[in-house]
Amino acid sequence: MPASPKERALLSALRSRVERRAKLGSTGRVPVRVGIGDDCAVLRLPPGQELLITTDMSLETIHFRRDWHAPESVGHRCLARGLSDLAAMGATPLAAFLSLALPPELLAQQRGRPAWQERFFSGLLALADKCNVVLAGGDTAQSPAYKGIQIGNTRTGNFGSKRHGSTGLALADIVLVGSAPRGRALLRSTAQPGDCIYVTGHLGGAAAELALLQKNPKRFARVCDENANAHDLLAARAVQHPHLFPQPRLAVGQALLQRRWATSAIDISDGLSTDLDHLCEESGVCAEIEAVRLPLHPLAAARPDALHLALHGGEDYELLFTAAATTRLPRSIAGVPIARIGQILPRRKGSQPRMLILCADAKRAVPLHAAGWEHYG
Amino acid sequence: MPASPKERALLSALRSRVERRAKLGSTGRVPVRVGIGDDCAVLRLPPGQELLITTDMSLETIHFRRDWHAPESVGHRCLARGLSDLAAMGATPLAAFLSLALPPELLAQQRGRPAWQERFFSGLLALADKCNVVLAGGDTAQSPAYKGIQIGNTRTGNFGSKRHGSTGLALADIVLVGSAPRGRALLRSTAQPGDCIYVTGHLGGAAAELALLQKNPKRFARVCDENANAHDLLAARAVQHPHLFPQPRLAVGQALLQRRWATSAIDISDGLSTDLDHLCEESGVCAEIEAVRLPLHPLAAARPDALHLALHGGEDYELLFTAAATTRLPRSIAGVPIARIGQILPRRKGSQPRMLILCADAKRAVPLHAAGWEHYG
Repeated sequence: MPASPKERALLSALRSRVERRAKLGSTGRVPVRVGIGDDCAVLRLPPGQELLITTDMSLETIHFRRDWHAPESVGHRCLARGLSDLAAMGATPLAAFLSLALPPELLAQQRGRPAWQERFFSGLLALADKCNVVLAGGDTAQSPAYKGIQIGNTRTGNFGSKRHGSTGLALADIVLVGSAPRGRALLRSTAQPGDCIYVTGHLGGAAAELALLQKNPKRFARVCDENANAHDLLAARAVQHPHLFPQPRLAVGQALLQRRWATSAIDISDGLSTDLDHLCEESGVCAEIEAVRLPLHPLAAARPDALHLALHGGEDYELLFTAAATTRLPRSIAGVPIARIGQILPRRKGSQPRMLILCADAKRAVPLHAAGWEHYG
Repeated sequence: MPASPKERALLSALRSRVERRAKLGSTGRVPVRVGIGDDCAVLRLPPGQELLITTDMSLETIHFRRDWHAPESVGHRCLARGLSDLAAMGATPLAAFLSLALPPELLAQQRGRPAWQERFFSGLLALADKCNVVLAGGDTAQSPAYKGIQIGNTRTGNFGSKRHGSTGLALADIVLVGSAPRGRALLRSTAQPGDCIYVTGHLGGAAAELALLQKNPKRFARVCDENANAHDLLAARAVQHPHLFPQPRLAVGQALLQRRWATSAIDISDGLSTDLDHLCEESGVCAEIEAVRLPLHPLAAARPDALHLALHGGEDYELLFTAAATTRLPRSIAGVPIARIGQILPRRKGSQPRMLILCADAKRAVPLHAAGWEHYG
């Protein structure tokens, strides 16, 4: 970790913040023997478990916009992306590692308000506490500097909006480490023809909220700026804010693994159509879903393009899983509703479509193509 | 992992490349049960071991320059940074995870030559093979795009140098996972007063080569462009290129752990003065070193500022460790020379300096201050 004085200040702030939390006992089960401060973190794995690791970048203008997303939301989403990958495998989170490069203006207080980085960590650490995961290390760097670029929208006047001078982008990469009983992690490559297809929660909400943000980027950021307690905000608003504060479905994934309910699973990060396509590709199967069975999020259901958002809208971070047709599943798991939306079919020959969708107004199923995920650039 | 078509192409290229290598058996011991392609990678930890994890960013203009560093060198250095952290703890590498964001021009072939990304992976995977570490997953994204920035030096005319139009920077984050016997990992916080201080290899070479690069950035890049076999190039030139192809001291670190020789260890990534300061701070001790004992790299020894480079020059990626005064160490470990350079002193009171250096022409030791690491911006 080569570190400039500014990086060391950031690292030191992070370290004291994390250690303070650890001392407060806000994280119950701590498998971290050596945390931030040495060349590596040292972790102990519970006996009989294997290790799961995932990494996810959160890059400004690609995965978030500084003028649309409050810092607490950026931190929350950064961690949520990794936790959702663990949830999809049925894993229990152990530790997170964060690599973070920030431009100087995000390290300093702005007009008496906490610095962007402090609010970013508030969002990230609030979710970490909730999910019992320790931030055990990472890397810090100064973000590459440019001259004359525009970050954010100068009209909305959020953090660091400038047309001239030298600045940079916020760049984060989160690593999540989890564990699962040996040989039991849920895979996306093990769906079988005849299995039923399920999703958790509701679909299209994240895309619908993103569309609202696009129309009025400042509204939510202002609410966040005025409310100092990001954790309360998050807890109170999570259901209404599927895009800004997605809830990784860890308890559902763990139940699917422990009760041996699921034959395969994946998280819906790119949109249902794209992630179902991944699952079909990896499992060597086809799939048919019924439009009428898709559980629409209230934010999506109110819109004329509700079906499009539910099928192709990204970042819902719900779970998509399969179970044998003989498996009886409850209507909800760990408080999250479960909906059966279709079934797995045998692999088809040649160029036939991998996915079909039966629409309410059609007599037969039509091809469904993967079409999710767009940048914010 | 939300993925655009371009990102998926990059991911797919990486995956087939890694799987081809795995099938060829170029990596002997494979603890990876599920690699690239699912939500998480699944790893098995050898019994009686604990887990070591480190992350290191490699950001263009901060950690490397596209016009100074051949893509093979960027890939090699990216992995070497993480491996060196494992070496400092005495760990055995298990797997690496790479998060990589690239601008479009680095994904495509350039005038019939392999794409930047291909050559980056050649450098990274050659070192991975040599060190028996599997690239088991990661994340890919498009790099944030800017208008009107200049990347690289237009005179040297390397990859992607442009003053106008839209482009971005190469951004990488490497995660290294390793293992060590439970409770035995070498720490930087366990040096004791009376211990002797040692370094591996030679110091100041990386900074001296960087100074050469600064004078003539194109020379080495041209050699690399003309030689298609990066692995051979690396093997033949590593000793002469301590900056471009640093060699992580894994075998030395493992021997220090296994033979119980070291009482503490750290790698020299920020420069001897800065990393010795870290070790003293974490161990709560002071240190005195002798200038005449510092093993100068031939590239540094030829220069008038040799001592400065050896003390403060970053990125040598040698190991700095302590051993009890009664411990007899060989002159070299795993073919790497070992030099005793000073000793650990008890903590001093108040504002007295933490580190002292005895220079050849001085009668008593003078304060040594930490002063390593600069950006390439």
